[in-house]
Amino acid sequence: MKDFFNVTPLEKVFEYIATFPVVESETVYIDKATKRILAQNIRSEEDVPGFSRSTMDGYAVCAASTFGATEGNPAYLTINGAISMGENPAARVVPGSAIRISTGGMLPDGADGVVMMEYATEIDETTVEIYKSVAPGGNVITKGEDVQKGQALLPAGTKLRPPEIGLLAALGIEQVDVYKKPVVGIISTGDEIVPIQTIPGPAQVRDINSYSISSQVVQAGGIPVSFGIIKDNYDVLLETYRRALQKTDMLIISGGSSVGTRDLTIEVLRSLTDSKILVHGIPISPGKPTILARAGNKPVWGLPGHVTSAMVVFDRVVRPFIAHAAGITLDHNHHTRRISAKTSRNIASTQGRTDFIRVRLRQSDDGLRAEPVLGKSGLINTMLQADGLVEIDMNTEGLDKGTEVSVIPL
Amino acid sequence: MKDFFNVTPLEKVFEYIATFPVVESETVYIDKATKRILAQNIRSEEDVPGFSRSTMDGYAVCAASTFGATEGNPAYLTINGAISMGENPAARVVPGSAIRISTGGMLPDGADGVVMMEYATEIDETTVEIYKSVAPGGNVITKGEDVQKGQALLPAGTKLRPPEIGLLAALGIEQVDVYKKPVVGIISTGDEIVPIQTIPGPAQVRDINSYSISSQVVQAGGIPVSFGIIKDNYDVLLETYRRALQKTDMLIISGGSSVGTRDLTIEVLRSLTDSKILVHGIPISPGKPTILARAGNKPVWGLPGHVTSAMVVFDRVVRPFIAHAAGITLDHNHHTRRISAKTSRNIASTQGRTDFIRVRLRQSDDGLRAEPVLGKSGLINTMLQADGLVEIDMNTEGLDKGTEVSVIPL
Repeated sequence: MKDFFNVTPLEKVFEYIATFPVVESETVYIDKATKRILAQNIRSEEDVPGFSRSTMDGYAVCAASTFGATEGNPAYLTINGAISMGENPAARVVPGSAIRISTGGMLPDGADGVVMMEYATEIDETTVEIYKSVAPGGNVITKGEDVQKGQALLPAGTKLRPPEIGLLAALGIEQVDVYKKPVVGIISTGDEIVPIQTIPGPAQVRDINSYSISSQVVQAGGIPVSFGIIKDNYDVLLETYRRALQKTDMLIISGGSSVGTRDLTIEVLRSLTDSKILVHGIPISPGKPTILARAGNKPVWGLPGHVTSAMVVFDRVVRPFIAHAAGITLDHNHHTRRISAKTSRNIASTQGRTDFIRVRLRQSDDGLRAEPVLGKSGLINTMLQADGLVEIDMNTEGLDKGTEVSVIPL
Repeated sequence: MKDFFNVTPLEKVFEYIATFPVVESETVYIDKATKRILAQNIRSEEDVPGFSRSTMDGYAVCAASTFGATEGNPAYLTINGAISMGENPAARVVPGSAIRISTGGMLPDGADGVVMMEYATEIDETTVEIYKSVAPGGNVITKGEDVQKGQALLPAGTKLRPPEIGLLAALGIEQVDVYKKPVVGIISTGDEIVPIQTIPGPAQVRDINSYSISSQVVQAGGIPVSFGIIKDNYDVLLETYRRALQKTDMLIISGGSSVGTRDLTIEVLRSLTDSKILVHGIPISPGKPTILARAGNKPVWGLPGHVTSAMVVFDRVVRPFIAHAAGITLDHNHHTRRISAKTSRNIASTQGRTDFIRVRLRQSDDGLRAEPVLGKSGLINTMLQADGLVEIDMNTEGLDKGTEVSVIPL
C-alpha cells in the first residue's frame, strides 16, 4: 500500500518547459499594452529626436563665441530674438550672437551649443553677458542621439513597462502585436470539497484552491477559467478534462488530497487522447505528489489538495511554464524576485529534497531578517503571514541562524 | 531672469500625503479581487477547519495504543474499516483499534492521532502492524487550529494576494468591500507637443508623456484618463484643468518643458477654485521643477516635460500619493521594491540634492552589480536600459565603486 514512485528533480521538470508552445498573438493599442508581452520586434523608422534640441533654458550660441568666458571676463553676445516652442526657427546664429531658447526648443541653424540661463545676464535688450563657456554639443541632444533610424530596439518577448510604452509613443507606433494571455483551466477534485457559498457539512471543506490558484494565475499574467468542483468519478472527470482542454492552453487540477483521488487523476490523465505522464512526484517540500502530464501539446498539472502546498508548487513550478506560454523572454523585473535577508534562527531541512520555507521579513538593525513562519504546513494562516519563501536545496541540511538567504516574495 | 524658488525637501513633500483623502469603496466578487485593496476588516464567523482533520494518509488511532512501537517491537491494531472523504465517520476508534484515513479525512471519535502509512503494514485484512509511535495530536489539524471563530484576520488596507483570496474562500466570503481604483487625469501641455499618430513637423515632438505616465498609473494601481494635449493658452488650460478635476481623484500635468509653460501652469493652478501651491521645486535630480498643488481636496501635479524626468518623479514622488489614495496600508510586497547590488564604478552626485541614478543590474561572480546607464538624462533609451534607480541622498557626495546599494526596480 506504500506510495512508491520515481520522483523527477526540479531541474528536469523545467527541461519540459521549452517543449510546450507559446500562445498566439493579438494586436492592441499601446495605452492598453502595459505588462503585456511583445510578439514582434520593434525597429525605429525614424530618428529620435527628429531635430537637435536644447536640454536647458538659456541661449543658443556658436560654442566658440563663449570660449574663455568667466565671471571675471564674460563674453558679450548680441541677442537675436527667441526660439518659439514647436516652431522651425527662422533666425540663425552667427558668431557673436545668441538666441533665447527653452528646454526642448529646436536648435537654430548655426548654433552648436546652449548656455544655461544661470550663467547669463541680459544687460540690456540687445546684449547678454555670458559667464561660462559651453563646449560644442553642450546642453544639446542631437538629431538621432536617442534612437537612430533603422535601430533594433525591442525584441519580441519583452515585457512592456512604462519606458517601453513611452518609446513606442515616441516612435509613433499606436498598436503593437502582443502575445495573448494564456488561458488556464482550473478544476477542483475531491468528494470532500463543497462550493464556497455553502456551509460545509461535517467532514466537508470549502473549495479554496479554485480561488487561490485563480488568483495566482492572474498574478502570473494568465486568464483563469474555473471548471468547478468534480467528484471522484472517472467518467465525469474524463469528460470535464476533455472539455476544459478544448477551451484552455493549460489545465491545473488540484487534487483531492487523498491517495485515492490522486490515483484516479493519473488514471484519467492516461485516458486522454495523445497524453503522457511526464512527471509523477517531485522531490520538493511541500509539493511532492505533483503531477505533470502532456495532453496533445498542452501541459496538465495535478497539484496537491492542500491549499498551501498547491500555492507553493504553483509559484515555484507551474509559474515558469505560464511565463513561457505567455511568450516572456525578457523581463526587467525578474531581479525583483529575490530579497536578501538573514535567517533569524536555525532552520531544519531534509537532505535529498528541496525545501521551501515560509518566512516573514522583518527590519532589524542588521538589515532584513527572514523569520520562519511557525505552524503546520497545511494552515492557510502560515501563507497569510508569509512575505516569501526561502529555498533550501537538496544538498543542504538546514541553515544556521544568520545565514544570508535570497527570499522569493509571495 | 534666474529661476529662483524655495524648494521643498522630499520628506516634507511626503508629509502632505496624509492630508489627501482615500477613495470610496465598492463591492466585488473575490475572484475579481486580486491586487485590490481591502476596505473592510475581515473577521472569521467560524472555525477553520470546522472539524479535526488528518494531514497524512494512514491510520486514525488512540495515540496511546502506539506508545513504544518500533520496527523491532511493533504494535498490532485491529482495523475497523475506513473513513470516506467528505463523510461524517460512523465508526469510533477505541484503544487497540485503527481506522484507515486519507489526507483531509475527518478524524473519527476516539482518535487523537494518525500513524503515517509509511510506518504501518497491514499483515492481514483485520490487523495492521505499527512501527512508530505517534504523539497525541500527531498528523492532525484540530478544529479551529487554522482560524478561530471571531478571530480578526485581515485589516482594511490589506492588498489582496492569493493567500488572502484563499482565506476569504475558506471563510465562505464571496464578496468583499475594496477601495475603488483612484482615477488619475493626465494632461500634456506645450506648444511643441503633437499627437503620436502624426508625423512631427520641424521642432515638434510626439506626446510621449501621456502614454508613459498612463502606463505608470496602471502599474501603481490607478485608472489613467488622458485629457490630451493642451496648447499654452491660459483659458483653455483653466477650462481643461477644471473639467479634468471633476472627473478624477488626482491630476498630473506634464509640463511643456519650457520656463514659459511652467510659469503658465502655476498661474492656471492658482486660478482654480480653493487651490494652493504646496510645493514648487524639490531638491531632486532629475525632477527639480516638480509642482504639487491642492485643488479642493485633490492633488494636482506639475511634472517636468522630459519623459525620463517625469518617469522618475512619478515613481519616487507621485506613486506614494496614489498608494495612499488607493487605501493601501499593508503591502506584503513592499519589501520587493529594493534589490541589493554593488556599484560597478564610482558614481558622482551633487551634495544638497537627492540624485536618482539609472542603473542596469548584471550578475557577476560577486553578486549583482549596479551599472550606471550612460547617456544624457533626457534620452528615453536610458530608461529602457535601466532595471532600476539608485538613490544618493542629499548629504552624500557620490558613491565609490563597490558600495552596497539598494536598487529601486523600475
